[in-house]
Amino acid sequence: MSFAIGVDLGGTNLRIAAIEETGKLLETFNTTTPVKRGRDFVIDEMCLGIQGLVHKFSHTYHFLGTGVGIPGIIEMETGTVHSAANLPDWKDYPVKAEIQSRLGAPVVLENDANCAALGEKWMGAARNADGLCMVTLGTGVGGAFIFRKKIWHGMIGMAGEIGHMSVVSHGPACGCGGRGCLEQFASATAIRRMAAAAARSGSAPGLARALNENQELTAKIVFQQAVLGDQVARQIFETVGVALGTALASLVNALNLPMYVIGGGVANAWTAFSPAMFRELEKQSVVFRAGKNMQTHHNRTMVTRAVLGSEAGLIGAARLPMMLKDSHDYCSRETAAVQMC
Amino acid sequence: MSFAIGVDLGGTNLRIAAIEETGKLLETFNTTTPVKRGRDFVIDEMCLGIQGLVHKFSHTYHFLGTGVGIPGIIEMETGTVHSAANLPDWKDYPVKAEIQSRLGAPVVLENDANCAALGEKWMGAARNADGLCMVTLGTGVGGAFIFRKKIWHGMIGMAGEIGHMSVVSHGPACGCGGRGCLEQFASATAIRRMAAAAARSGSAPGLARALNENQELTAKIVFQQAVLGDQVARQIFETVGVALGTALASLVNALNLPMYVIGGGVANAWTAFSPAMFRELEKQSVVFRAGKNMQTHHNRTMVTRAVLGSEAGLIGAARLPMMLKDSHDYCSRETAAVQMC
Repeated sequence: MSFAIGVDLGGTNLRIAAIEETGKLLETFNTTTPVKRGRDFVIDEMCLGIQGLVHKFSHTYHFLGTGVGIPGIIEMETGTVHSAANLPDWKDYPVKAEIQSRLGAPVVLENDANCAALGEKWMGAARNADGLCMVTLGTGVGGAFIFRKKIWHGMIGMAGEIGHMSVVSHGPACGCGGRGCLEQFASATAIRRMAAAAARSGSAPGLARALNENQELTAKIVFQQAVLGDQVARQIFETVGVALGTALASLVNALNLPMYVIGGGVANAWTAFSPAMFRELEKQSVVFRAGKNMQTHHNRTMVTRAVLGSEAGLIGAARLPMMLKDSHDYCSRETAAVQMC
Repeated sequence: MSFAIGVDLGGTNLRIAAIEETGKLLETFNTTTPVKRGRDFVIDEMCLGIQGLVHKFSHTYHFLGTGVGIPGIIEMETGTVHSAANLPDWKDYPVKAEIQSRLGAPVVLENDANCAALGEKWMGAARNADGLCMVTLGTGVGGAFIFRKKIWHGMIGMAGEIGHMSVVSHGPACGCGGRGCLEQFASATAIRRMAAAAARSGSAPGLARALNENQELTAKIVFQQAVLGDQVARQIFETVGVALGTALASLVNALNLPMYVIGGGVANAWTAFSPAMFRELEKQSVVFRAGKNMQTHHNRTMVTRAVLGSEAGLIGAARLPMMLKDSHDYCSRETAAVQMC
């Protein structure tokens, strides 16, 4: 039996796990990432953590390697971080080569959203799906695609910016420079913004009361209010659902993928936003309806909640070296005319 | 040297070509498709045309097979037409097996929009691009994707319904059941509709005059008016460009493909709509801007006109049996849980 190490390097947490090739979690190691102490310190911590787990399990198991999920754009060919907002000093540093030389075993770097999609495909909601789109509703809205069993990076590793698909013409301005982006309606940040505006306006006594009782109106508190029957809170999740349904309808119409998985913290409010999401998707997507009307069940477009929660990225990261074992071409970038270097 | 036959079966025209494996067009044969005389008659005509060309060139060249582009959803596995609006009696008929038995050589069926994308990739605007999205602006708006050099069919062969991506929230109702679909703004039909409404309203004297001089305001006439400086006609193509730019921005943000090719009759009005299209794309797509700001030219997202015009489909169809020669897996569908049968 083999095992691999998965690493989920966040802006605030560093998590490391040893995972059997069956998907069984053997052990996890969590620490806050001391990002402020610099790249070298973080890499030292990470390698120590990995080595501890490798040492512990390599007596019983064959060690395949390490997968590292990083919140940024990865240059797969060079094993470097092209850009990562929360890890400024990691840019253009040979991360993969450095970790690999310390561990003496294969290391695969991957974007964290892609790791989460891979995790859900391997052990979560999208088992057996050859193709899927994962939408992560968190502080922002991220996304990832798997086509023909492989992660889809796009030309410069930027595929999956689903949060910046425009869903409302002339909608609110987004930090990306666009208007009416999905992220402005379906992220935890957007929910907080909409709830705070409603509480301030005087038209939402329930939310105003909740704001008085809590430091701030988090997406979780707004969801609780919706569950308790607050109409304004319900309307906010209606807005989340309509925006998400609109973006999904465009994706389903364009790509006709078999599966769409909704993850991230906001997905916990599934019961509050999914009816509006499905209603909008059904209304706007001729391809969704066509699949539904076909006689065989397996032609239906599946839209479902993620099931692995915050562990999806960790599990997907551990999957990377296992895929490397099966094929050296677990992913590929698209190129036009000239190969990206 | 080898050659293949490409067939472009439209609702009104049947075109057949013999094409060298270098892409050189050896001979074409055009006829109006006698669709009304029924499937068997059309297939007889088609096979006669193919056999004539095969007979003529197989003395000099090695014959590889025939590719047939059909305006409908193809079931690749069974070689049947799942649905085709203009060819009602073709549904569930074993088209591939029938033609193959008559010709005694491999036959590949493919959706016509996918053939056009393949044609542009092989001999047109997208040469050397491993991945591309083609948008066809005709009577309707169609689309096709090539990922990792292969046509992307989606789960039930319906990928590419780009015309039904919503670009204007609460916009005009579309025949598909949705609202504000791209097709309602960027098709020849939409241009005719917008121009007729403007001419009727009394606010567009130039278009009203053009309508008096012609039987109807075709997209071509509206374009001519725009070129002559008519402000209303210009505004219509501004609307086309903004809608197309909005849809492209969503696709570029989601997929980060290297190339987007705009074809179909309306693409002839490129000078009239492309400035607004690029402006909107730049404004709405963080991924487009990121590629543009990278130092190397080949990281840029290319958006360009198709160059093969109405021959793209014919050329792409002929490419199909050539790809079959290289690999039996020239395309693949995505499946979830159960294989499509």
